[in-house]
Amino acid sequence: MAVGTAHPVAFVGLGSMGLPMARNLVRHGFPVRGFDVRAEGRSAFAQSGGTPAETIAAAADGAGTLVLMVVNADQAEAILFGAGALEHLAPDAVIVLMATCPPASVAALAKRVTATGRAFVDAPVSGGVVGAEAGTLTIMAAAPAAVIAQARPLLEAMGDKVFHVGPEPGQGATMKAVNQLLCGVNLAAAAEALSLAAKVGIDGATALEIVSGSSASSWMLRDRGPRMLEETPRVTSAVDIFVKDLGIVLEAGRSEKAALPLAALAHQLFLAASGRGAGAEDDSQVIGSYRALNGMQSFKHTT
Amino acid sequence: MAVGTAHPVAFVGLGSMGLPMARNLVRHGFPVRGFDVRAEGRSAFAQSGGTPAETIAAAADGAGTLVLMVVNADQAEAILFGAGALEHLAPDAVIVLMATCPPASVAALAKRVTATGRAFVDAPVSGGVVGAEAGTLTIMAAAPAAVIAQARPLLEAMGDKVFHVGPEPGQGATMKAVNQLLCGVNLAAAAEALSLAAKVGIDGATALEIVSGSSASSWMLRDRGPRMLEETPRVTSAVDIFVKDLGIVLEAGRSEKAALPLAALAHQLFLAASGRGAGAEDDSQVIGSYRALNGMQSFKHTT
Repeated sequence: MAVGTAHPVAFVGLGSMGLPMARNLVRHGFPVRGFDVRAEGRSAFAQSGGTPAETIAAAADGAGTLVLMVVNADQAEAILFGAGALEHLAPDAVIVLMATCPPASVAALAKRVTATGRAFVDAPVSGGVVGAEAGTLTIMAAAPAAVIAQARPLLEAMGDKVFHVGPEPGQGATMKAVNQLLCGVNLAAAAEALSLAAKVGIDGATALEIVSGSSASSWMLRDRGPRMLEETPRVTSAVDIFVKDLGIVLEAGRSEKAALPLAALAHQLFLAASGRGAGAEDDSQVIGSYRALNGMQSFKHTT
Repeated sequence: MAVGTAHPVAFVGLGSMGLPMARNLVRHGFPVRGFDVRAEGRSAFAQSGGTPAETIAAAADGAGTLVLMVVNADQAEAILFGAGALEHLAPDAVIVLMATCPPASVAALAKRVTATGRAFVDAPVSGGVVGAEAGTLTIMAAAPAAVIAQARPLLEAMGDKVFHVGPEPGQGATMKAVNQLLCGVNLAAAAEALSLAAKVGIDGATALEIVSGSSASSWMLRDRGPRMLEETPRVTSAVDIFVKDLGIVLEAGRSEKAALPLAALAHQLFLAASGRGAGAEDDSQVIGSYRALNGMQSFKHTT
C-alpha cells in the first residue's frame, strides 16, 4: 500500500539509465526524490523537474518505495545497510532493485530486507539508454504476486514490457542473466563467423549482408556486425560490460549448479579482448580475439 | 556461352530441395533433364513438366550446364568422375555445385573440372525447402567473375539473393559454413539460455517471450525456441543435420587453420544429442544435452 503517486519515491542512481527512468516516474506523477553520489546527476534531475536529495537518508526518509538503479549488488547493499536507507523508509516500504546483479546476491539482499517487514522486488531491465528514455524497457520482475501488483504502476511508468517471472527474488536476476547469456554468445558467434569469412578473403560487407538476411541472423549480428568491419568504431557498449555481465551469467550458473559451456567460452573471448587493452572499446571488438587467435589483420587488410 | 535457355541443363539430385529448384529452372524456360537415383524423384519431376533422364550419362549428354544438388562432396565426385557425367558434357560446359560441402573438397573438385577446360561454380544455398519452392534461396556463388556472369540467369531462376562471394571455388562453401556456424551456435545458445531459466523455475514461455523481444533474439531462437518447450516437437530439421553441418564448419576451419571454438563446442552438444539417440529428432532437442548435463527433466516437469 506504500507504492503510488501519493507516496514519496526514493530513487538512487541517476546515471545514463537511472536518470531517464526517474524522469519517467516524475512524468507519470510520482513524487520522486532522486539521489546520486555525483552532484551532476542530482542537478540534471532537478533541471527536469525532479526533487534532488542531498543524502541517501533524505531521499529515503519515510518514502514508500526505494528504487535502486546502481552499478552492482555491493552498491545496493551499501545503500540499504551501510548508508542506512532501509531504516529511513516507511515500515511497509517496497524496495525495487533494478541493477544487473548476481541472483544469489539479490536473494541474500531480499532476505535481509524482508526480515525488516518490508517488501523486495527483483526487477532488472533490458533495453539500454534508448529504452530508459522512451519508457520502453523490458522489466523482468520477481516477487510474490501481491508485491508485484503493488509495484506494477511504478514499473509500467519505466517499461512497456513488464514480466512477472516468478515469486522468488533472484529469478529476475537470473532472467536478466539468461538475456545477457544470449547477447554475449550471439555477439561472440558473429565475430567467429565473420572472422572465418575474412580468413578466406570473402568481403566482410558481403558476408554480413548474407548472414543478416538468413536464418543465421541475430539482433546482435545485425547491430554489432557492421562495427566489426570498422577499424575504430564508436563505442555504444564496451567490451568490459560483457566481461562483467557474462561474469554474472557464470555466477548465476554456479550458484544454481548449471553448466553453461557456451557462456563460459564467450566470456573468455571478451576477457582476452579486455586483457589485450581493448576493455573500453566497443564490444564488437571481441572480434579482435579471433584476429589474435588466428593471426589475422583487420578486415581492411584482408579483403 | 554454354549456359542459357537454348542449351540443355542437366540437373542431378531431385530431392526435397533439388526438385523444386529444378522445377523453377523449367518455369524460367530452361530445358532441364533431371536425374535422381530414386525413380520417384524422376517421376515427380516429369509430372511437373520436366524431362527425366534414365541415367546420368543421358542427362549430361552434350549439356551446357550440370547442376549438382546432391547430398555431399563424395556424391558430387562420384557423379562427375565415377559415373562419367563430366566427359558427357559439352566441352565448354559449366558445372554448378549447390550442395553443402567442405570447402577443401569443393576446391579439389573445381581443380579437376577446370583441368578439362570446363568451368566450375561453387554455389551452395540457404533458405530451405520453403526458399527452394518459392525461388527465394540465398545463393553464395564463388567463381571467376566471367563464369558468374554466365551462370547468373540460371542462379537467379532458383534464388532471389545471388551473391558473388569471391573468385575461388571453395569460398562459396566457406560462406555456407559461416552461415551454418551462426545457425548452430545461436541454436545451442538458445538451448543453454532456456535451460538456465528452467533451472530456476522460470516459466519457459515467459522466458522465451522476453528474450525473443530483446537484443538477445536470433532467428534460431524465435524459430526453434517454441519447439524447445514441447515434449515431442515435429521435426523440421534433424539434430543429425547439425552434426553434419557443424562438422563441415569445423573442417572448413581446419583446412584454413582457423580456430572456431564456439562452433566446436556447439558441435559437441549436437553430437551428444545424437549419441543419446536423438539424432533424428528436431534440432531444437539439442536442449536435451543441457537437461542431461544439468540433471533436469523437461520444461513441463520443472515449471
